[in-house]
This record gives sequence, C-alpha cells and structure tokens, in this order.
Amino acid sequence: MSIIDELTSALGPAKIALDTATLTAYAVDQAPVLDYQLPQAVVRAETVEDVQSTVRACAAHGVPLVARGAGTGVSGGAHASKDCIVLSLERMNRILDLNPEDETAAVEPGVINADLNAAAAVHGLMYAPDPASFKLSTIGGNVATNAGGLRCAKYGVTRDSVLALDVVLADGSLIHTGHQTFKGVAGYDLTGLFVGSEGTLGIVVGITVRLKYLPQDVHTIAAFYPDFRSAAAGVLAVGKARVQPAIMELLDSGTLAQLDEVHGSDLASRGASLLLIQTDGFGAAAEAAAIRPVLVAGGAVVTMEASAEAEQLVDLRRNSRGVEVDDEYRVGEDVAVPRSRLVDYAEALETMAATHEVKLKVVAHAGDGNLHPTFWVDRVDKTVAADAMVRLGAALDESITLALALGGTITGEHGIGQYKLRWLGLEQKEPVRELQRRIKELFDPAGILNPGKAI
Amino acid sequence: MSIIDELTSALGPAKIALDTATLTAYAVDQAPVLDYQLPQAVVRAETVEDVQSTVRACAAHGVPLVARGAGTGVSGGAHASKDCIVLSLERMNRILDLNPEDETAAVEPGVINADLNAAAAVHGLMYAPDPASFKLSTIGGNVATNAGGLRCAKYGVTRDSVLALDVVLADGSLIHTGHQTFKGVAGYDLTGLFVGSEGTLGIVVGITVRLKYLPQDVHTIAAFYPDFRSAAAGVLAVGKARVQPAIMELLDSGTLAQLDEVHGSDLASRGASLLLIQTDGFGAAAEAAAIRPVLVAGGAVVTMEASAEAEQLVDLRRNSRGVEVDDEYRVGEDVAVPRSRLVDYAEALETMAATHEVKLKVVAHAGDGNLHPTFWVDRVDKTVAADAMVRLGAALDESITLALALGGTITGEHGIGQYKLRWLGLEQKEPVRELQRRIKELFDPAGILNPGKAI
Repeated sequence: MSIIDELTSALGPAKIALDTATLTAYAVDQAPVLDYQLPQAVVRAETVEDVQSTVRACAAHGVPLVARGAGTGVSGGAHASKDCIVLSLERMNRILDLNPEDETAAVEPGVINADLNAAAAVHGLMYAPDPASFKLSTIGGNVATNAGGLRCAKYGVTRDSVLALDVVLADGSLIHTGHQTFKGVAGYDLTGLFVGSEGTLGIVVGITVRLKYLPQDVHTIAAFYPDFRSAAAGVLAVGKARVQPAIMELLDSGTLAQLDEVHGSDLASRGASLLLIQTDGFGAAAEAAAIRPVLVAGGAVVTMEASAEAEQLVDLRRNSRGVEVDDEYRVGEDVAVPRSRLVDYAEALETMAATHEVKLKVVAHAGDGNLHPTFWVDRVDKTVAADAMVRLGAALDESITLALALGGTITGEHGIGQYKLRWLGLEQKEPVRELQRRIKELFDPAGILNPGKAI
Repeated sequence: MSIIDELTSALGPAKIALDTATLTAYAVDQAPVLDYQLPQAVVRAETVEDVQSTVRACAAHGVPLVARGAGTGVSGGAHASKDCIVLSLERMNRILDLNPEDETAAVEPGVINADLNAAAAVHGLMYAPDPASFKLSTIGGNVATNAGGLRCAKYGVTRDSVLALDVVLADGSLIHTGHQTFKGVAGYDLTGLFVGSEGTLGIVVGITVRLKYLPQDVHTIAAFYPDFRSAAAGVLAVGKARVQPAIMELLDSGTLAQLDEVHGSDLASRGASLLLIQTDGFGAAAEAAAIRPVLVAGGAVVTMEASAEAEQLVDLRRNSRGVEVDDEYRVGEDVAVPRSRLVDYAEALETMAATHEVKLKVVAHAGDGNLHPTFWVDRVDKTVAADAMVRLGAALDESITLALALGGTITGEHGIGQYKLRWLGLEQKEPVRELQRRIKELFDPAGILNPGKAI
C-alpha cells in the first residue's frame, strides 16, 4: 500500500490534500527558498491520533515529515523536503483549558497566538510571547522556533512560558514532558529540548503555558533621534537608568520611510531614528517619567507620551510583518548582539550597506540586542540581477560575521530552519554540533522528522 | 598507576585530600542519607584543566565522579558514591566578568550566590535566583539543581537567568553552549539540558548569567491569618487582583513557633499563619496598596507595611535554612501544586500530620505553589524510634502522592538527587524516563558522572 493510500485509509480522505494548489501553498513558509520542493501530500490533522497515524505512516515508508502551523516562519523551518508529507496542525486549534486561578492554559498546537491572548484577557491575563506574527502564527509554531517578540526583555521568550508538552515521537508514541506547576525540576528538561527544535525531535501536539498578568496601565514614549547611533545609545541609557520597559523598539530611517509609505504617516520627517518605548504595570507612569529625561539628555525629541498616537505607532510596528516578504531582492536577518555593542553594530550596518551599494532598513527589539536588518535592492532587470544578488549576499554575510565577532548570535528568535544552516558552523563549534546530531539520532534514528533543518 | 597517583601527578598534592576528616566532610550534602559512602579522595579543582584532568582520570579508571559546590543541596545530589572521587569546585570562585552595560556576568562555578549579588549591586543589578541557601550555595550548585528561591514567581528560576555554559564532558573535553545575548535560538537548547542535570551529563565549569535591575523601591506586607487555610486562600486572592509580588511566602503556625524559639520573636501569638509579601520596583507602593485591602477582606490582620519589622521578617524567613537539618526524625519536602490547589493541599497536610501522629510545619513559596512541608517527631528513645520512622514515612509518602494527584510535582526546586528517586516513577512515565536514560548514555556512556542520581 502506498503511503497516500495508508494515510487516506487511516485518516479519511477529507484530511488529505493532493491537489496542486494545496501542495503549492504548503510547500514553503515565508522564508527565502533555496531548494524548492513540493510535498506529495498535505495532511490536515484534527486529533493527536491523526498525528500519530501520520508519523507512523511516514516511519513505515521512510518518508520525510514536515510539520507546520500557520507557515509564518522566516527561516524555512517549514519548507517542504522532496516528496515529503506536510503535516498541518492548523485544525488542532482548541484552547483545551484556561484556568484563571492556576494562571495556566492548555492548548492544541494550532491555536493562534492572538486568540489565546484574547481568551486570557477576559481574565486579566496574557500569554506573554508576542512575535510580530502574533495575529497569524500558532502557539505550536511559536514553540517550534522558541519565538520571541517585542516584550521579551521584560517577559521572556516562548521557552519561559512553556510548562509542559505533549509530543508525538518519531515512532508515533506520545509522551508528556514537564509539569503543570510554575516550577518543577524532576529529571532532565525535555520540555526545553523540544522548544526551538523546529519539529526535528518530535511533533508537539499539546502545550501547557503559564500566563502572566495583563498590565492595567501602559505608557508609551516615542523618542525621535537625529541619527541611528544616538537612538541606539538611548537604549543603553535607559538600561543605565535601570528601568525595564516592556517594549523598546528601535526603528531606523529606512523603516520609518516604509511605514510612512504604507500608512501615510510622517514619521521620517520627525527624525532619522525612532526609539519606541512602552512601560507597563503598576509602575508604568513612574518608569516613563524616569525614562523621559534620559532620552532627552541623549538628544531625543520626545514628541509623545501616553498618547493615542504613540499607541498607534506601537500598533504599526507590531503589524509591520506582512508588508513585504523576503525574496531574492530582499534579505532579512535576525542577529543579536550584547547590548553594549548595539551602537557599534548599528553604525557598522550602515557602512556595510554603503560599501555594497544596497539599501538598508533596521528594526530592533533593542532591549534584547536583537536586530532585524534588511538589505535590499530595487527589483531590477534580469540582466543586472546577478550582480545585485552578489552585493546583497556580501552585505548579509558581513552582517552575520560581525554580529558573531561582537559576541552575538546568528538568530535571536527566528530559528535556523533551512535558510541559516550555512552560518551555523560559524557560531557553534563541531563538538557542540556533533552532540546535537547525536541527540537528533537518539530521537529520530531514521531521520524522518523535518530532515535538513535546525542543526 | 592508581587513580590517586594519577590525580596527584596531574594536579599536585595540594589539591588532593585523602584524610578521613576531609573525606567525611565531603561524603554528603545536607540531604538525608540513605546509603552512606566515603569517597576515596576529594579533589579541589582550581582551574578548568584540573577538572578535565580529574574527569579523564576517572574515565580511565572507571571511577565514579561526584561534583559539588558548597554541599548545601537537600536531595543528596552530592552524596558520595562508593569509592568515588568527589570533585569540589569551591576554589573556582572568581567572577570573571561583570558587564553592567550588557547586564551579564561570567562566573566560575564556585562563586557564592550572595557574592555575585554583592558585586552586581554596585551597578544597580542583581542575580535574581535566590535559594534560601544563597549566602552559602554556589552558582554552580544552583545550576546543577536549577535552584529556585523566594522571588521566582516574578523573576524566574536559575534556568531563566543562565545564558551560556562551559561544560567538561565525560571524556574530559570542553564545550561551550548557549549565547552571550539575552536571546538566541541557534540549535538545540543544550544549556537548558545541563541546567538541573545534577552533574550527571557534564561538569559545569563556567556560567554566563543575565542580571536584572535591582529594585529601588521595596514594600513589605505581613498578613496574619487565623488559620492556614485562609492564608493559602490569600495567595489566590492576590493573584486574582492580578498583582505580581516579588516574594509571597506562606508560613504556618509550626514555622512561626520555630522562628519565635530561635529568634525570640512573638509571631505565633499574632496569628496561626503568616503571609509575607514583598513588592518591588517602580510599582512597589501601588502594588502594596492594591494588595492590602484584598488581604484584609480575606480575614488577615495586616500588622506591618513597609516597616523595618516586616523587612526583618523577610530576613528571618530567608535565613531559616540551617536552623535545623533534616535527619531521620525530620523529613522535609519540596512539592509544588497548581496554585488553585494550594488551599486543598494545605488542609490535607494538616490532616495527614494528625492521622499519622507526627508534627508538621509548612513554609511555601506560595506564588509558585511550591511548598516545603516538614514532618517530624521529637527525638525519641531508640526502642520506639522504628514506629516513629514508619509514621513519618507514611505521612511523607501521602504528601507526595497527594501533590501528584492534584497535578503537582515531587520537586519544585530541590532536585531529585538520590533521595527522591524512589518517587520519580510516580511522576514520570516509563517512556519519558527511558528517554532520559538514553540521553544520559549519550553524554556519559561509561556512567561515571554522578551515577544513580537525578533520573
């Protein structure tokens, strides 16, 4: 029996898609595509048993299995392998339990991040990790990439909110890791091992998360600076004041121009860089008051505070994903550097763009030192495209190697996926990579789970 | 050449202790002893190379290696195995780097938790994890057990503060895991796997931690309740008010009586239970103001607020470790339950103590649902000791199984060590335990690293 017949028999035809439109739609996520491949089928699982059946069928036939949520990843973690089965978890989208006294929620992997937050908000709670894709992306996808977001510096990344997981292993068996309590140290931290493993060690089919308190008070400050360097220095100045904002986003002139273009705003005319800061909680007003003079002393024009316009700016920033998607003319990165190197790195990026004659825009989760520089060239005639590609690639490689030289990482929150594998060896030495390969072998000896990704 | 000769030759005699007094002092940590064994030598490493040489010698001779910091663990993770080498990391106590702009510190494993905090405080920073042993215990030991403490509910456990590790593996090789940045998702989370692994996967010889901002304002509230149940309910009431205290400690009448006895205070006369709450940061005063009426409405007498006496109480609580050590007449636990089950569990503990005719005192990191009940009997004549042991054991087992039945864990922060292995199978099913055994085999195929512990 073919794997398609086997899947159809086990799950029923309604959950198996074989048409070209679906196969094409599920062939890639939002990352650049290095090696385009079509899956042989898309399975839309509705239950844990569906996932187990799919894994068992793939194991029996030696067929690669690529699990995915909403496909909003930007590192190619959900790109299809040749003749793989793509396992979509979108339909497993129930919030199974939301306990306001325990301050926890148990969800299926296909629950949209924003939907969990909406359900939690009713109880004065929130799910803290907030990747820019939060209105589209799934908790399962967030777990697969250990997603970050805007408010991580204060509230932590996905890993910090995940208490327990249900995971289907490569042999189709189901295990439960972690604990329902906030703390728990029994045995090795398997939960943490699965978080961020991009579907290469097992398929996460259930997630218990800790919720945090939805802040009752929020203050927003928009600080415009004459140049990017001063704005980056502002991040350090806020740190030196020992105030922990919930959000501290750094936007350069290219980003401001783009927001203006899309939303008809006039941000670029107000300054060359914007530091957008939000404080929250019982101390929000006092924190904002402590931050403001520090920004002004650093040369900022603080044009708004706790205003509707400032809130709208945060909303613009939050929703900037989807304005454009990286393609061959536009390459985005996700490096992080130690905070003290932000200023140097920001300056060096501008030099790189000039040297390689490419355009640059940068947005940074600055509190984390996590930068998303994008290099791009205008869409050009095919005859000169090759040269543009070379220049883009050179700028990109230089931005990676400099981040590493400054003590940084090649990926702060997007994951390695397929796209960043080429740089992983620059960050992690062979013994560490070998350990990871052996862990992969231990969990997935036949190598069917998302092969060629993450490590 | 014997292993002792080999170690002496590699490290020099000054780092090797063979005398009975030292062997005895390093044979156990502060946990109950189930199987007393003496090491054949104690190695006091001063460098990474010393650790590597010791591991290599143990590997070559097939001799078990038990690493330890200050020996303040209470689960027997540092108890000696028969004829093992105990590797003390106390002398590796340098703070290698403390970068106030990056808000990170790199330390050797023997640095005392309180010493790192003192060094950080100069810069307005703190190392957040604060186990009760913080004045004695080492960062390396805290990492080995994924130590918690009083302020975890707000600031996280050890895992949440550790960014990167240097680890000597079972073959003596040295690897570096993690990242210097706050965020980083390259590859599998090996750092998280080592944290809490109690020296069974490798020997941690270097730790990079994230520091947090030392709060400038702190408010302390002491709420006395007529009974333990009301005090436990107070914890949930504060949660419902959606205020996140830095500290929320619950002390029962037995604990208050003991503090009175040791410190000459009069706590027990003020109420049968005490909920000790500390808020901190820019919102500390507003948070305290929001909490107070909630406590009063729940029947509390709030006798102190932001007073020197309240601060002193927190200090008493912080330093309650060391007043007594568990022994055969006194067994302490470290369970955690979901927050909503705190009240039920608290009541059930009192029933258990009555049923089994043993004494009980309870202190809880209540914000985490992490309880430390202690059952004990007065030191009795040998002729009746056996019966007392049976009653203690029965109460203890019942407290464990009930915590699990309520969705809890057998260890919130102390670790499994040697002492809690007997209950691990009640919490974790065989497939999860088998996965952990295979991970252990992968890292330590000869089984020399702290055998018989943690998993």
